Order: sequence, then C-alpha cells, then structure tokens
Amino acid sequence: MNRYIIAVLVQNQFGVLNRVTSMFRRRQFNIDTLTVSETESPDYSRITVRFHGDPRTKQQLVEQLYKLPVVTAVEDMEPEESVCRELLLIKMENDPSSRSDILAAVEAYEAKSVDYTRDSIVIQLTGDTRRIDTFINLMRDYHILEICRTGVVALERGSRTIRDEIS
Amino acid sequence: MNRYIIAVLVQNQFGVLNRVTSMFRRRQFNIDTLTVSETESPDYSRITVRFHGDPRTKQQLVEQLYKLPVVTAVEDMEPEESVCRELLLIKMENDPSSRSDILAAVEAYEAKSVDYTRDSIVIQLTGDTRRIDTFINLMRDYHILEICRTGVVALERGSRTIRDEIS
Repeated sequence: MNRYIIAVLVQNQFGVLNRVTSMFRRRQFNIDTLTVSETESPDYSRITVRFHGDPRTKQQLVEQLYKLPVVTAVEDMEPEESVCRELLLIKMENDPSSRSDILAAVEAYEAKSVDYTRDSIVIQLTGDTRRIDTFINLMRDYHILEICRTGVVALERGSRTIRDEIS
Repeated sequence: MNRYIIAVLVQNQFGVLNRVTSMFRRRQFNIDTLTVSETESPDYSRITVRFHGDPRTKQQLVEQLYKLPVVTAVEDMEPEESVCRELLLIKMENDPSSRSDILAAVEAYEAKSVDYTRDSIVIQLTGDTRRIDTFINLMRDYHILEICRTGVVALERGSRTIRDEIS
C-alpha cells in the first residue's frame, strides 16, 4: 500500500465530482483526503486527492481518469517535486492549567489563535502533513474538542503547471 | 440563490463521499468547494461543503443527509458564528519587472513564498474566502501560472462542537 497525491483538472460541470470519486471507488482506492475548488479559469475546477492503494492499479486509474470526457488533465504529484500543504483548525479546551503550554506550542509552530473564549481556543496552522500531524500529536496531551483539516493541496515546484499534462 | 457552508460528520466507510455528494446532486445544489479529511477520531471523517441554492431546499437537504446511515451529524455553519478559512497556493511568473510588486503584496498579506526559481514563485496564503479572493485579484495584474485552493473549512466559535448536533 503506497500513498499518492494526484491533481485532476476537470470541466466545471454538474456532477463531475461524483464521476471522479466513482472512479476511485471502482478501482478500490481509499481516499484519505480530497479537496475541490476553483482555479485560474472559471471553466475548470481542480480536484486534489491523497489516496492509498496498489502502484500497478494507480497507473490504470490515471488512464481511466483521462477517458472521462470531463477530465482535462491529471498530474501525479511526486513529493520531492511538489509543494504540498494543508490547513488545520483545532479547538482546544481553555483550561487555566494547560493554557500556557498550548500557547507556547502555538508560538513555536508559528500557528495562530483565531478564536478565544473562556472555555475554548481555536488554533489555525498551515504546513505539510507531517507538521500538522506532529502539532495534533502534541495537542493530544491536552483536551482536544474538535479537529477540522482541509486535506492536501499541491503544486509542482518550478514553472511547469498541470496544463502541461494535457494529452 | 444563497451560499451556505455545512459540515457533515460521517463514518469512515468505503464510498461514503459518493453517497454524500450524490445527495447534493439529487437536490440540484451546486458545490462550490468541498473538503474531506480525518477528525479527532479515526472512525469519522468530516466533509465541509460550500454550495449555493434555494434556502427552502437546503433544509430538506439537511434532513435527507441525516437519513443516510453513514451520516452522524450535520452542522449549518453560520458565517457570524464560525471561523471559516481556506488555503491558497498560487504560482506566479518570476518576471524581474513585476517581482518587487509581487513580493510587496506577499509581505502586506503576511503570505509566504514557499518555492522560488528563476522563472516562478509559489506563494502560500491562509485566510477567509474574501482575503484569498482579494489577493488573487491583486495577482491578476501580473502573470498567474497556476492556482490551487483547498476550499473552505469551518469550526463554530466557542466550545460547542459538531457532536452537539448528533440527533
């Protein structure tokens, strides 16, 4: 079982997300995270998927995705060649006994408190998956109320773009 | 046509994303952004959807989502009561004539250059949708090579969580 990140450039059409995620389901790939959002063009959306499964089947998945008429380009985001980032919002209990430890970690990670009440602190952190995971592990020593992550987005390093993958 | 953000807490099961997005499709809601990722519990994922459509139908959508056995809780994220954030990666052409303008904007927005080559600069920015949109509009004066956004994630302000919505 290997982990992969791929980006899929799709035409902005009704139900396109369903067609793409169905392809992952049919090929028995488990989606870890998925994001879909607009791009530099109003006609296209970009879907970024982190998933795990068999390397041989992955190549078939990419070929099958290209067969969908709504799919314009697919890019395999190699970790060494890409900038991969995600965003975390985490809500901690604001307990006087743990507050200074939590705020010290916020400072050390260059995170940000974005909501602060008598009972709770919401912290925002952007980074790669490892950085986000490490921060969450640190917070497990205190009382986590709620976690929300965006999942990974990725761009290739340098000036090449996903449009260079249009076949 | 109104815009909404809802968070859906779902059991980690194969194909669950498809079941949830099908419900939006059947109710004729257009998804603007969608993120799915892990939560504080390994048994659950959290799906955040920003979408637009008819207010009356939205209530029906929430009720229909609760009828799916994989759906544990649904939270309507009111903008005033929530922290809503997204993450942008944007790749700009690194042209000597526009470089200092771009880097001044990066500093003013407290954004970050995360990849820098002779031909390109990748910038990372976290903020609410308005802040991200404004930054992209500013960058349109120069040459944008590629845009990738996570879509919105949201947590309710204060100590309440989505688990308080379990019916």
